[in-house]
Amino acid sequence: MPRVTVWNEYRHEKTDPAVAAIYPDGIHTTIASALGEHGIEASTATMDEPEHGLSPDVLGSTDVLIWWGHLAHDEVGDAVVDRVQQRVLDGMGLIVLHSGHGSKIFRRLMGTSCNLKWRESTDSEVLWNVAPGHPITEGVEENLILDQEEMYGEFFDIPTPETLVFISWFTGGEVFRSGAVYQRGAGRIFYFRPGHETYPTYHNKEIQRVIANAARWASRNHDVTQKFGNPAPLMPPGS
Amino acid sequence: MPRVTVWNEYRHEKTDPAVAAIYPDGIHTTIASALGEHGIEASTATMDEPEHGLSPDVLGSTDVLIWWGHLAHDEVGDAVVDRVQQRVLDGMGLIVLHSGHGSKIFRRLMGTSCNLKWRESTDSEVLWNVAPGHPITEGVEENLILDQEEMYGEFFDIPTPETLVFISWFTGGEVFRSGAVYQRGAGRIFYFRPGHETYPTYHNKEIQRVIANAARWASRNHDVTQKFGNPAPLMPPGS
Amino acid sequence: MPRVTVWNEYRHEKTDPAVAAIYPDGIHTTIASALGEHGIEASTATMDEPEHGLSPDVLGSTDVLIWWGHLAHDEVGDAVVDRVQQRVLDGMGLIVLHSGHGSKIFRRLMGTSCNLKWRESTDSEVLWNVAPGHPITEGVEENLILDQEEMYGEFFDIPTPETLVFISWFTGGEVFRSGAVYQRGAGRIFYFRPGHETYPTYHNKEIQRVIANAARWASRNHDVTQKFGNPAPLMPPGS
Amino acid sequence: MPRVTVWNEYRHEKTDPAVAAIYPDGIHTTIASALGEHGIEASTATMDEPEHGLSPDVLGSTDVLIWWGHLAHDEVGDAVVDRVQQRVLDGMGLIVLHSGHGSKIFRRLMGTSCNLKWRESTDSEVLWNVAPGHPITEGVEENLILDQEEMYGEFFDIPTPETLVFISWFTGGEVFRSGAVYQRGAGRIFYFRPGHETYPTYHNKEIQRVIANAARWASRNHDVTQKFGNPAPLMPPGS
Repeated sequence: MPRVTVWNEYRHEKTDPAVAAIYPDGIHTTIASALGEHGIEASTATMDEPEHGLSPDVLGSTDVLIWWGHLAHDEVGDAVVDRVQQRVLDGMGLIVLHSGHGSKIFRRLMGTSCNLKWRESTDSEVLWNVAPGHPITEGVEENLILDQEEMYGEFFDIPTPETLVFISWFTGGEVFRSGAVYQRGAGRIFYFRPGHETYPTYHNKEIQRVIANAARWASRNHDVTQKFGNPAPLMPPGS
Repeated sequence: MPRVTVWNEYRHEKTDPAVAAIYPDGIHTTIASALGEHGIEASTATMDEPEHGLSPDVLGSTDVLIWWGHLAHDEVGDAVVDRVQQRVLDGMGLIVLHSGHGSKIFRRLMGTSCNLKWRESTDSEVLWNVAPGHPITEGVEENLILDQEEMYGEFFDIPTPETLVFISWFTGGEVFRSGAVYQRGAGRIFYFRPGHETYPTYHNKEIQRVIANAARWASRNHDVTQKFGNPAPLMPPGS
Repeated sequence: MPRVTVWNEYRHEKTDPAVAAIYPDGIHTTIASALGEHGIEASTATMDEPEHGLSPDVLGSTDVLIWWGHLAHDEVGDAVVDRVQQRVLDGMGLIVLHSGHGSKIFRRLMGTSCNLKWRESTDSEVLWNVAPGHPITEGVEENLILDQEEMYGEFFDIPTPETLVFISWFTGGEVFRSGAVYQRGAGRIFYFRPGHETYPTYHNKEIQRVIANAARWASRNHDVTQKFGNPAPLMPPGS
Repeated sequence: MPRVTVWNEYRHEKTDPAVAAIYPDGIHTTIASALGEHGIEASTATMDEPEHGLSPDVLGSTDVLIWWGHLAHDEVGDAVVDRVQQRVLDGMGLIVLHSGHGSKIFRRLMGTSCNLKWRESTDSEVLWNVAPGHPITEGVEENLILDQEEMYGEFFDIPTPETLVFISWFTGGEVFRSGAVYQRGAGRIFYFRPGHETYPTYHNKEIQRVIANAARWASRNHDVTQKFGNPAPLMPPGS
């Protein structure tokens, strides 16, 4: 069973009553609790803890890290970003949610700006499952409908996803690559679009199922010890 | 300059007055003429010619084949499908349009059913350019709008595109991977969704530009002679 | 636990004493037995059984099909090839071994010739693990060495693998993409190069481990019911 | 015609007589001169010029940047790395050679460590063309042989290449993904392995041809203006 840590910036919930009404204990608590209902043990970490709650010990015992940030990407210390990146390359899974597209760690791992279009309005969102058979869509119908969400639109400046899992439709005429899978080193990465703080998206059972599926899928399958450096020839001359 | 052959089933235009009104000389003629305006020499071939107009000589002097078919996929002879497939593997480009998703040659090259959802209704279509920088989107804006088109929806049973160039939005809530790039052997393949026979889509200047770009891109860059068989060792033992 | 069926042409073992000495009960029996040691239940099917041992009932209760063929690819009936392809698109895993690269079913799913170079000589083979972290390489070292094997060399006419798992080195100076992953419909496909009939490759514990890992990985995660056809709009006009 | 800038660290040539004997005017001069023979105009820039020779003006008029660095990756200023990255995302091509795998800019764009194995010894290298039909292999035979080169071996910690163009074989038993294609934003990237400073690799006509092909291929096809930000709905409600 994967050991999951849910990381949250945890600022909106403390300053915006509309957000606090939806997530009184923070987005991280809602997600961790939902994972528990799927049989996955999850702890939490937040920005304003020492080392943002992501000490070497915490990361060393985390199989999958879930990341929600928005307002304060720049406040995340580079040493912590380095540490998270290294753990991903060594095999830790990483699930980046919604506005986490702009986080230092996601941009670091992608190599691109990760910019996009957005609009807070009255859009509905339909997420289409374009990867039936992928572990992330286990038990997911052909589409998921969210009555109201923030719009994210293309062009989304990311590398071509290795697997595209969801494409979103928005009322206003936009589309978005909403579920994107990458491998970096031995680590699996999943970007999942939904989850604006002013909507109850993480209370949605179908969204919770996707995150739980992704956590199981992203969990390291096995220890990986990559060997680098300067080896002797494997096959001596004249062999 | 690529030598393009535009292949058309050419049945709807002869039996349906609504289609004939839009494409009086056939879809193939409209597309070939549009390519001419882009400086690309294009000839045509149709189903009811001998060998469907695709003799070894014709294929041997074709750099890029464009394919539109719908009603009569099953009438295309297997020997011609074999011949087209081999030419693609040897380096001929192939552009498959709209209902050509169900053609023998496309299904042969994809290995999947190529099934999808569809609806003839009052949908508008917005094609979003998700590959800015790709030669196929040269001069193409961030999106193309078609006031009315047939809806094609996911799940579209194709292999993961090597590059996804366009994603379509439809009024009814659907999305579709509308521009998909593949390599098979030395040949480049582009599937492009728009072009239902009852709409004037191939008269649209932006759609024409995409097809012209794709024809230039899919054209073989250089002769390729793949070597197979049973060679002597390149490096003799004890070298 | 996946239900695996190991399919073998089973001709070499009956006609060539050198092969019979290595695989007295057939390659299929050796592989099935090895899977059993990994806790995977495997049955077998062979060319000369009715329907090549691949009736609708057998395929319907097979989660992963393993395929070894060589001399008699052309004798496999098209109806059986159609049936296997459909089962793959519906979610059955398929592992194609060695000379199975030339089988009807592999060429059908790839869309290419699947041709390559080969040489029966005194080559050693080193398979390098280029996908640490992938479930197929769980417990696999950075390389696997086979003292003697048939050489397979590039160019190997396959579509770009979605994940390249192994690259082989041969004494004679050749390289080969020896472990290649594809998705077709809801089905996972793995091509794995080693296993010429005149070498004891399938008795090698490391090779057995790769095949067992691949069988677990390729097993359908969940039922997939792809919906195609002509649906009503999800979002009515003016919604 | 692409405007190419060849960037070189230019340290080995000034301190190591063995290197100076091969590249008396620096690796950059040899490469720029070779491009000239292929009809491509190339200027040069080196580490110890102001802003490492990569001012905004220089980058603004560069379609393709070629990068060779080794000893002094850490001395490249972050502001210049930022600037190069942004230009790549905006459409500038980037060709990274040999030990440039460890450069800040390549690691920035890849998101991984880009570590590998290496050995300076008596290895020969055979580069196998696994992408016949790709513009980078135009006129390239099925393989290129370098009598002596530094060995680079797997695991090479890079994201899965979008197209794998070359795989190298080394005498000592190693293989390496030697030619790897990526897209980041609107920019095309090619990593090409050969070129250790103590061997005359960049005087080799076949290697020069690959670099010239790559420069033409990586050159921006067209201006790209990606739009981000907060747009009005394209399709007003009730449309």
